[in-house]
Amino acid sequence: MESPIIVLTTDFGAGSPAVGVMKGVILTINPQANIVDLTHQVDPQKVLQGARILGGSHRFFPQRSIHIAVVDPGVGTSRLGLLLTTPHGRFVGPDNGLFSNVIRGYMPHSPDADGPVPIPEGCSARILDQPRYWLDPVSNTFHGRDVFSPVAAHLSLGVPDAELGPPAEQMDFLTTPQPSIQNGEIHGEVISADHFGNLVTNITAASLSSTAVLAVGIKGRRIPGLSKTFHDHGPAVDGVLVALISSSGYLEIAVRDGSAAQYLEAGVGEAVIVQLGH
Amino acid sequence: MESPIIVLTTDFGAGSPAVGVMKGVILTINPQANIVDLTHQVDPQKVLQGARILGGSHRFFPQRSIHIAVVDPGVGTSRLGLLLTTPHGRFVGPDNGLFSNVIRGYMPHSPDADGPVPIPEGCSARILDQPRYWLDPVSNTFHGRDVFSPVAAHLSLGVPDAELGPPAEQMDFLTTPQPSIQNGEIHGEVISADHFGNLVTNITAASLSSTAVLAVGIKGRRIPGLSKTFHDHGPAVDGVLVALISSSGYLEIAVRDGSAAQYLEAGVGEAVIVQLGH
Amino acid sequence: MESPIIVLTTDFGAGSPAVGVMKGVILTINPQANIVDLTHQVDPQKVLQGARILGGSHRFFPQRSIHIAVVDPGVGTSRLGLLLTTPHGRFVGPDNGLFSNVIRGYMPHSPDADGPVPIPEGCSARILDQPRYWLDPVSNTFHGRDVFSPVAAHLSLGVPDAELGPPAEQMDFLTTPQPSIQNGEIHGEVISADHFGNLVTNITAASLSSTAVLAVGIKGRRIPGLSKTFHDHGPAVDGVLVALISSSGYLEIAVRDGSAAQYLEAGVGEAVIVQLGH
Repeated sequence: MESPIIVLTTDFGAGSPAVGVMKGVILTINPQANIVDLTHQVDPQKVLQGARILGGSHRFFPQRSIHIAVVDPGVGTSRLGLLLTTPHGRFVGPDNGLFSNVIRGYMPHSPDADGPVPIPEGCSARILDQPRYWLDPVSNTFHGRDVFSPVAAHLSLGVPDAELGPPAEQMDFLTTPQPSIQNGEIHGEVISADHFGNLVTNITAASLSSTAVLAVGIKGRRIPGLSKTFHDHGPAVDGVLVALISSSGYLEIAVRDGSAAQYLEAGVGEAVIVQLGH
Repeated sequence: MESPIIVLTTDFGAGSPAVGVMKGVILTINPQANIVDLTHQVDPQKVLQGARILGGSHRFFPQRSIHIAVVDPGVGTSRLGLLLTTPHGRFVGPDNGLFSNVIRGYMPHSPDADGPVPIPEGCSARILDQPRYWLDPVSNTFHGRDVFSPVAAHLSLGVPDAELGPPAEQMDFLTTPQPSIQNGEIHGEVISADHFGNLVTNITAASLSSTAVLAVGIKGRRIPGLSKTFHDHGPAVDGVLVALISSSGYLEIAVRDGSAAQYLEAGVGEAVIVQLGH
Repeated sequence: MESPIIVLTTDFGAGSPAVGVMKGVILTINPQANIVDLTHQVDPQKVLQGARILGGSHRFFPQRSIHIAVVDPGVGTSRLGLLLTTPHGRFVGPDNGLFSNVIRGYMPHSPDADGPVPIPEGCSARILDQPRYWLDPVSNTFHGRDVFSPVAAHLSLGVPDAELGPPAEQMDFLTTPQPSIQNGEIHGEVISADHFGNLVTNITAASLSSTAVLAVGIKGRRIPGLSKTFHDHGPAVDGVLVALISSSGYLEIAVRDGSAAQYLEAGVGEAVIVQLGH
């Protein structure tokens, strides 16, 4: 049986030598490791953003994948290192909420506030406390290299979860701002802007599916309904500004052949209001 | 026989999670896939720029490579998905002209205008219309993930071209601006600027080989002839501005140990005139 | 025995098509090659910066790795191409000082000035002069593609060092600015700023280990001692500016959850003074 894929997600920046060094550490332990980058473009130290990307992306990777995720402002402090095992992949990284949107799908309901939550049924977790599976010495500032990469490399060689540390009873969770519904309107916000300047909101396709969308409002503009593609003959403002369902299943504001972020001078946190029909 | 290499070219930006997700999709279907990035730095939605990069680069990859290329402003509209098979690689992506500079080498002469052209002799093409080789569901905005990656992964496992859809009779073609020759001068333009600020023109080395280059003019400067390297004692303006033949076989304007783009405040579209001798 | 890993380090920029093309060349010669990026974010033509990254990173890669390094402003001139073989990896690239910090560890003492040095004991080197292991033709501007990548690919297939050219007696060396000690103070400087805005100095942890650090001064600020992590309750200025030992073993100036480079408006070359205790 071939070695499981190791997937890397960090806030180190595309092309950072720190990413290269993590790969060197993995390949020194398992020269057959198959390493893939999910992204290294998480904004520096934005744990919740990293959590969202992992939550929305990990199901596109093989079920047996081992993910290393490092968005870790508390590195070297008392925050623990974690191995989380789910039905769709194992996850190695800091216990700081970075895996919130991975476990969300296995929880009966979403927590109301940030803080520790029990490990969901069907999942299990281990606290990383076995230095024999780490580099020696371990720095205080780069556990991605010194702890998480070697642990993942040993896992990929077949070391069982239980060797890496004792079971964790709980893990940290970060909540995502949820849209509210008031008087037939959904009030949400922009939660990310992609490379093309498309503005992705926290309003799900599911919340829009049972009723008609009369209009989408952002920064004083009113987009009279949803388009299906960036280019169809659906409703648009000024012929270019459209609202549609993104490939990740969220309401998205886009500009045809351009950047909505630039066109609207809008970014993360911008309010978005959906008027619903009957 | 080992699995052919899968090469990715997109306008998603270096380090985009969308690229990571495409790799996850490929590896879920073919865990042995060997995936390589050509580039994800095509300027957003610049199909012709992507076509030039593919045209100039694909011959450096193994002959059996499978290329996935995604510069796709018309995603989700009526534009078709294409599998193009050539003597040097197979290409999966939108039928929007992105493969123009790949097929150019197999065509008897270059088309005069943009639009559909017959599939050149020696090549073949298929229209992608078999959803059983795609993800389910297929989004309207990310066929790189939902159609092209799964199709390429299945090809890498040995699925024959003919399984993926019916033969295409024609495919879209985008013309590249050609330099003109007037009164012993070649009038061309800058078509790209690289990471170092070198300005690459559309004037080929071949068009300069049969005669002497008296001077190269750009933005009012006159470079008195060609240099062989960035640093030889060839002709230079102000000791730094040189003209030479780039590694891709085109006339290039460069600044020694610096950026010609910055030095000249010039970019894509800037006029370049070559004075020829006798 | 599996093929050794090939590690790439260049100044081409993350996601440059030139990097993709180098990988294509390698895979055409050795389709089984396992290629890893260390970084392509060396600042353009900054050979010494590339040397530092290679020096600090190569030991994290497998001992049998083959490194290709290309920071090469003199490409196409009389500068030679080199294969350097060390106890921890082989290195292919220009003979311009790029491997200085790799060989430094094998030299009895550090050279006082830039220039050629003998190959250190325990290492060996070859001058690349065998075009049958290169692409044909060889350009004057892209030896990364035309010379270094094919040479490394042939090495990975088992071609012996001696086939690639005659022994080199010496190789180019670039000195790194060293801190000075005056009146119980260490005077150093910032030598790099990372993606997070952390400022790494040329002052080693070893030079600080035998005595107490009273304070670290930079740009008129005085940080009263060292912290262990970015977040511990160690000494800080304004609650955020800290000094600590970086994961590469050098004194580093950082801002908690922020960028020291921005906070101090400081970069490479900025003076840093350490006051030592008794």
